[in-house]
Amino acid sequence: MSGSLELPSLSSLLPELAEYVALPSISRSADPDTMRATASWVAAQLAFADGRVVETDGFPVVRGEWMGAAGAPTILVYGHYDVQPTGDLAEWSTDPFELVVDGDVARGRGVTDDKGPVFLVLKLAQAFVAHEGGLPLNVKFVIEGEEEIGSPNLPRYVREHADELACDLVISADGAQWRPGEPSVSIASKGLVGLDVVVTGALGDLHSGRFGGTVANPVHALSTLLAGLHDADGRVTVDGFYDGVAELSPARRAEIAAVPFDEAAYAGGLGVPELFGEKGFTTLERLWERPTLEITGITAGGKYSVIPHVATGHIASRLVGAQDPEHVASAIAQHLLARAPLGVEVEVRVDDARVSAYRIDPGHPAIRAASAALETVYPGEGVLLAVIAGTLPATTLFEDVLGAKTLFFSFSTSDENLHAPNEYLRLPRIHEGMRAWEALWRLLADGEHRLAPVGTAGTTAAVTE
Amino acid sequence: MSGSLELPSLSSLLPELAEYVALPSISRSADPDTMRATASWVAAQLAFADGRVVETDGFPVVRGEWMGAAGAPTILVYGHYDVQPTGDLAEWSTDPFELVVDGDVARGRGVTDDKGPVFLVLKLAQAFVAHEGGLPLNVKFVIEGEEEIGSPNLPRYVREHADELACDLVISADGAQWRPGEPSVSIASKGLVGLDVVVTGALGDLHSGRFGGTVANPVHALSTLLAGLHDADGRVTVDGFYDGVAELSPARRAEIAAVPFDEAAYAGGLGVPELFGEKGFTTLERLWERPTLEITGITAGGKYSVIPHVATGHIASRLVGAQDPEHVASAIAQHLLARAPLGVEVEVRVDDARVSAYRIDPGHPAIRAASAALETVYPGEGVLLAVIAGTLPATTLFEDVLGAKTLFFSFSTSDENLHAPNEYLRLPRIHEGMRAWEALWRLLADGEHRLAPVGTAGTTAAVTE
Repeated sequence: MSGSLELPSLSSLLPELAEYVALPSISRSADPDTMRATASWVAAQLAFADGRVVETDGFPVVRGEWMGAAGAPTILVYGHYDVQPTGDLAEWSTDPFELVVDGDVARGRGVTDDKGPVFLVLKLAQAFVAHEGGLPLNVKFVIEGEEEIGSPNLPRYVREHADELACDLVISADGAQWRPGEPSVSIASKGLVGLDVVVTGALGDLHSGRFGGTVANPVHALSTLLAGLHDADGRVTVDGFYDGVAELSPARRAEIAAVPFDEAAYAGGLGVPELFGEKGFTTLERLWERPTLEITGITAGGKYSVIPHVATGHIASRLVGAQDPEHVASAIAQHLLARAPLGVEVEVRVDDARVSAYRIDPGHPAIRAASAALETVYPGEGVLLAVIAGTLPATTLFEDVLGAKTLFFSFSTSDENLHAPNEYLRLPRIHEGMRAWEALWRLLADGEHRLAPVGTAGTTAAVTE
Repeated sequence: MSGSLELPSLSSLLPELAEYVALPSISRSADPDTMRATASWVAAQLAFADGRVVETDGFPVVRGEWMGAAGAPTILVYGHYDVQPTGDLAEWSTDPFELVVDGDVARGRGVTDDKGPVFLVLKLAQAFVAHEGGLPLNVKFVIEGEEEIGSPNLPRYVREHADELACDLVISADGAQWRPGEPSVSIASKGLVGLDVVVTGALGDLHSGRFGGTVANPVHALSTLLAGLHDADGRVTVDGFYDGVAELSPARRAEIAAVPFDEAAYAGGLGVPELFGEKGFTTLERLWERPTLEITGITAGGKYSVIPHVATGHIASRLVGAQDPEHVASAIAQHLLARAPLGVEVEVRVDDARVSAYRIDPGHPAIRAASAALETVYPGEGVLLAVIAGTLPATTLFEDVLGAKTLFFSFSTSDENLHAPNEYLRLPRIHEGMRAWEALWRLLADGEHRLAPVGTAGTTAAVTE
């Protein structure tokens, strides 16, 4: 059933992928023309599906749909054509916008997040049309251009086009696999809420000698506030922070304990002297099942010897289970404001993006089909059920608006320098990914893993607005 | 005796001061040619004293001496021709390097720190030579070009020219008066030692979701370390930090209590909600007589949602009494290293500059002469004995090498935006300063305040190497 389609060779695929990577579609800083040119490139690849560039309040969405499989399920393929900024060019060994093949990897900004993983789906669909005259099931495409800046305009677009986007399942080409050499399907991703803590003292920076000892130092005040957010055991001290976090069941603990995880190798790979986190949980339990509160940045003063008049910290909290982003943000804010030290003013500004955690039942037909598809490509390796400890806001959006669960089916791997210099994609992943998508589509369209319409299978019951 | 010299008018002085301010002698960033041109401008003003530009290992020193007062004491006038960086030009209301007169102030980078206060001494000396054929006492000039970067090459220059620089007293044209409208003589300045605290975790920044909860966060670790440097009462917790700090005598407490100081006005002027500092001391006691430990900057991460792999804080500690900078630095370093949290590495790097506190006896003839000189210019206002809570490294250098005490005699005022945008000098200070220097020189040369040679008066006994 799978593996029967004739696929294009790498030598014919790479020049096209190089064209795509060469478009510097950095959503944080690109001009609209560059973003539109990139969207048009993707739309042209979707010519078989009436590919088109659709305006939004921000950078456009690329749409398309091939609906010729009467009676078959309808899936929505999600991905994004925008990329992260390059960061410091000096840290790149090659030009970020030139696809450079180096051994069995290809390097370039966006090649693994998310241009490569989307590209291989487009090329697979084209191969289906070329060799079989159509796809095994109905497919709608939504390739957005603002994922790397938090998808600010996607919610409105999806809400306003809910009928047009109706589907039985979303399959995301975004969201990396956990580890190389180990096929995995992700059954959850964490939510996110962020906030700035701004501590203000005097009207301006003060000479640390001529005013030292007379006023509270905002950096000292901020340090004290931030230091107090965890106890010595790494547990978050904020009252109400853990509301909605279920106790970890013995069954889940056993599942996680069964996952091969070499703590020493993990620590060594990161270059940390030892691992650290909330007491009472294993490293993998903390990573997959526990919420976190991390200080992601702090800034005050500079090289001059002053008492800075303002000190700012940013906190990112990753959420699990039924934690409510609003509730968590206000709990953190109340905690900080209640502890505002003497002599300074404390302000908390919650980020716009507030994303709940997402989870799909391991028994969902999509998970079973995805596992089976991966087994056809990676026979005998077993398929791990993993968690994406990052945040993919589109999942909850699609669940809320379309009533559709999202399956993560990316052929990126989480170690491929996503968001960092020297981003790369393992070249074998291109054909492996195409074969896996081919198998997945065939499995969902037919046979024991055929996707049930929304609402008929218990595990697909979705929250709708 | 004083006030008899014919002084040039402001209208003749300001164009020359404007020339001086127009030279952008920012020691932190200027090219050597600009610095040398500024030094040459000062040397030309010292033509009457064989003014010359002397090379050092860094930017040159301007030297000169007028030694025609046989039998009179010899003083050394110290100042600097370099200035601070402009900072953000958008915060300046006028071009920093154009002297702009606005009502009774003149604005421009360096106009009050230290170009104006040095300029008025040069013009006074020229007036003496023009109208009286010479100065009332022997004067050596040392105007350096690296004060704003910590005078890295001055110690070697002074040590290698100790014989040539021998003097009975140093008078510094640097070091602002405490408050406007209130003549003061400073009897002390604080020492300084600074250090960086660098906390390192992983090899690179980590995605806060995909790695959150598994490793210690360097920002959190740094916050905890910095928060622990003071207790809730504002006292420094570092063992050994207060070694060498004498208990405040009831007499000194009474003197300070007698100084008019409006806490509410001070807090209001700084824009802080309330004052804060070490418990058990008044604000002025803390400012003048207690050592401080301030975090002057902190940096980690940025706008991306990462666990930063490195977090850096800078600490500046101002010293009093017999505190030893080396000892304080190593006490702070030991305190921090002993508390290094799990999962990170802590490194402490002590700054090169290590300056002890400086003090001159209130009964020293120079203090009495300075007070008397100020009384002739500001009759009936009384002269306050104040402390410069900042650090003037040259003082301890001159004491150590030349065995000479330093009198601070600047006509800058500490509120004139030193080191900040829109630096200014009150115009009346120019003539007031010239009159005061005239009176001071005459008093030191003759009469009851005549300066005694080093070693003959008990209060001038100096530590020499």
